[in-house]
Amino acid sequence: MKISNEIIGLAAGILTATAMIPQVVKTIKEKNAENISPFMVIILIIGTATWTYYGTLKDDMPIIVTNAFSCLVNCLMLFCKLRFSKT
Amino acid sequence: MKISNEIIGLAAGILTATAMIPQVVKTIKEKNAENISPFMVIILIIGTATWTYYGTLKDDMPIIVTNAFSCLVNCLMLFCKLRFSKT
Repeated sequence: MKISNEIIGLAAGILTATAMIPQVVKTIKEKNAENISPFMVIILIIGTATWTYYGTLKDDMPIIVTNAFSCLVNCLMLFCKLRFSKT
Repeated sequence: MKISNEIIGLAAGILTATAMIPQVVKTIKEKNAENISPFMVIILIIGTATWTYYGTLKDDMPIIVTNAFSCLVNCLMLFCKLRFSKT
């Protein structure tokens, strides 16, 4: 049975995207974003946005879907960091 | 000036890979892997390995290089988790 490339790409995307979710849930539940480095999150936002753009250039759905999702999650993390930071 | 797709892909890869490094350095320096979930790291190892395989299927260097590096870093994190865990 030959698994299409798309399925493999989407499986990889689901795995790497899933790995982010516990950190987001923990941050929102505990309303604590102390251990999140805003600098890192901003780099990740730029990186995943660039990957999404790369996916459009290559017309590669798994890359687009995975990285657009990751970009959104990282934007949410940045929002949490700004919202929950004790300044 | 038309930037080649490869350059964009590699730039995205460097950004997302770079974002992992501080966490690894912190873990090794403090010899503390308490806040690392082995389950998440294993999912990330499988995910980045699948992305690397996907990259070979698509003959896509940026995907291969970035995800092979990420896979290695996550293997290192798992090693740190096993090594530094106070059991």
